Amino acid sequence: MEGDPALRLRVFDLNCWAIRYLSKRRQERIRLIGDMLRQEDFDLVLLQEVWSERDYSDLKVKLGGCYPFSHYFRSGVIGSGLCVFSRFRILDTFLYQYSLNGYPYMLQHGDWFCGKSVGLVIIKISGIIFNIYVTHLHAEYCREKDAYLPHRLVQAWELAQFIRHTSKAADVVLLGGDLNMHPEDVGIRLLRGWTGLRDAFAEATHFEGCEDGCTLVPNNCFTDKSELLPFPLGIRIDYILYKAISSFMVKCEELKTTTGAAPGMDVPFSDHEAVMATLHIQRQGQAAGATLATAEPMLVDVVTEARTEVAVGLRAAQRQRYSSGRMALLALLLLLLQAVAALGALAGLDAGQPFPKLSFCLLAFLAIGILLLATGLHLFHTMEVKMLHSTEEQMRMVLQTLQECPSDG
Amino acid sequence: MEGDPALRLRVFDLNCWAIRYLSKRRQERIRLIGDMLRQEDFDLVLLQEVWSERDYSDLKVKLGGCYPFSHYFRSGVIGSGLCVFSRFRILDTFLYQYSLNGYPYMLQHGDWFCGKSVGLVIIKISGIIFNIYVTHLHAEYCREKDAYLPHRLVQAWELAQFIRHTSKAADVVLLGGDLNMHPEDVGIRLLRGWTGLRDAFAEATHFEGCEDGCTLVPNNCFTDKSELLPFPLGIRIDYILYKAISSFMVKCEELKTTTGAAPGMDVPFSDHEAVMATLHIQRQGQAAGATLATAEPMLVDVVTEARTEVAVGLRAAQRQRYSSGRMALLALLLLLLQAVAALGALAGLDAGQPFPKLSFCLLAFLAIGILLLATGLHLFHTMEVKMLHSTEEQMRMVLQTLQECPSDG
Repeated sequence: MEGDPALRLRVFDLNCWAIRYLSKRRQERIRLIGDMLRQEDFDLVLLQEVWSERDYSDLKVKLGGCYPFSHYFRSGVIGSGLCVFSRFRILDTFLYQYSLNGYPYMLQHGDWFCGKSVGLVIIKISGIIFNIYVTHLHAEYCREKDAYLPHRLVQAWELAQFIRHTSKAADVVLLGGDLNMHPEDVGIRLLRGWTGLRDAFAEATHFEGCEDGCTLVPNNCFTDKSELLPFPLGIRIDYILYKAISSFMVKCEELKTTTGAAPGMDVPFSDHEAVMATLHIQRQGQAAGATLATAEPMLVDVVTEARTEVAVGLRAAQRQRYSSGRMALLALLLLLLQAVAALGALAGLDAGQPFPKLSFCLLAFLAIGILLLATGLHLFHTMEVKMLHSTEEQMRMVLQTLQECPSDG
Repeated sequence: MEGDPALRLRVFDLNCWAIRYLSKRRQERIRLIGDMLRQEDFDLVLLQEVWSERDYSDLKVKLGGCYPFSHYFRSGVIGSGLCVFSRFRILDTFLYQYSLNGYPYMLQHGDWFCGKSVGLVIIKISGIIFNIYVTHLHAEYCREKDAYLPHRLVQAWELAQFIRHTSKAADVVLLGGDLNMHPEDVGIRLLRGWTGLRDAFAEATHFEGCEDGCTLVPNNCFTDKSELLPFPLGIRIDYILYKAISSFMVKCEELKTTTGAAPGMDVPFSDHEAVMATLHIQRQGQAAGATLATAEPMLVDVVTEARTEVAVGLRAAQRQRYSSGRMALLALLLLLLQAVAALGALAGLDAGQPFPKLSFCLLAFLAIGILLLATGLHLFHTMEVKMLHSTEEQMRMVLQTLQECPSDG
């Protein structure tokens, strides 16, 4: 490719839904994904939800010939599930774990245990420096009453800030992943507005795949049909976004998605559809400079909207911090009362009937249990309040800067 | 300053030891610090251990006239304690919380609750972009048997990686903070070697202050004299480090430390001494390019040494994960046995003496308590193992890169 000013890059992105013991036909699908990736000649493969390091190792062995470079990002208890395979040498990697990611006690959702993060790998192709980001944001379990929206917005904000601060020496920035947001959602607009990233689906010269570029479709046998009832075509939550920073120009020549089942197979690769982009990168005559995709007055609106949602989350977190703190205090009070009563009984001061020992002990244990649990919750919600508050303040500062000196935005 | 190619920057760094209810004469000292900062004309003030937002607000009000720009970094339950005051507009901020930071159950140490982090603020003076980092790493409680060394090394590594990845567009990089490491410690050598940062104390043309630049000295009435017994002069753990990235040159003209007591006062500012540097920044004829301070063969040695220590920590964490997992299993087993026995008794299958109810219940509660605690510990140590493993692997990758293609290092 040396000496050739134009570069064609084929990128593959997929949420693999590979949760050990839970995901259906996991091993078969991982095998299928590996086979397909070996046949196709992508340059970069960005995967999410590869929760088992064993699955990653199997893929690594299988793909060693065509993708000699790879990286698995570890974080949280079982995560992050993110990994990258590359035809080009990975020069450096870095992981940023989002400060908020759901609640440890929401066991049925489990996002907290994954340590959701954004992973960065840096590669250099024909002298062009690529910052490749792969991420997976908190899931949306109920669109009508989305309790996780503030957390997902904090994640989108931190993702945007991470990209902005780490990509200043890059020529091309690429982000792939399951953002768990629809294209018109405030989080996506915030991310795109604040980083200047462009949506490969919207920019593609040629598109082939599910209608509207959807990546969670009723046609896929693994999707939950009832969740998709309000969206007969499906929803688009998996993205490839990109931008050129310095004197380069990136165009999306082609975007494809899988359409429910792997070609010639009866089983799809995952419950999500894969997104595949062919990007055309060319050096420009003059440096374009970093630009924001969204015009500044619009960006002000988006940041304001996001800030309002974060403020709603902040108030809810403050309420939960207060309730858990009060509960801990009440439990402590009960324990103290019991201690006084027990000491009184021991000292023979108790004139009436002694307490039934069993009930007394059970009550004490219950109080200790509640005290510990409520204290843990209080600490957790204190941290949550801190991070929501911090994000809200950062957004306020950005709004101030945008309004005071728009050119610095 | 416009048009003048040379710039003089006065930087102040102090660990303020301002823990509410615990630090001696806190409010008086915060007042003193504020008065002194208002009198002196520093350009940048980097503070640590300002745990109370109220103290920060008080300082902000007092210093508003001379340092109109400031930022407080929030993280963890009570932290991060980091804040910055600046004479120049803060263009952007970003916080990175270290993935490991001690243990929540080490209540007497409490580092875990602070959410130790590195904060970045970006400022621009006369067209020169400054990336200013402020941080505070995990304390060292016992130098002979430092159980937190692997965590502190992970923090030093993440700090170095964060600086490397976020400073690529900066002209000058500045790091101030309490690193809790002596100058010859592996963590400091790793940080300096991997970022190319230079130590203001070692580089200063003129020095004035405690001997050897110590910042924790027996002369300070707040320090624990017994801890400093092996070090009659004190220890140096607070630093100002710097480097120029592009076509700039930075020199440390002068470095000062306070010497135990504030001038003319009977009370020192803190248990730590303040570090004050005067830096001279000048544009150079040609770009120097990013350079590593440590020659590569030496860097290989330092990374290898750090990796060995991280591997020791990894094995300890794996043992703790195993023990806590086994403990959780045993508690579960006990509970199951009790359940079987209770069901047996209920069904009248129990031929002998029934269990004494009280002991039975107490035992069940104990088992539940141990189960919950051991499960929590197991989850925590699983995360610890993941992060230590990940750091060790990153170090291995860096070593490989350094050895394979030294020029890319």
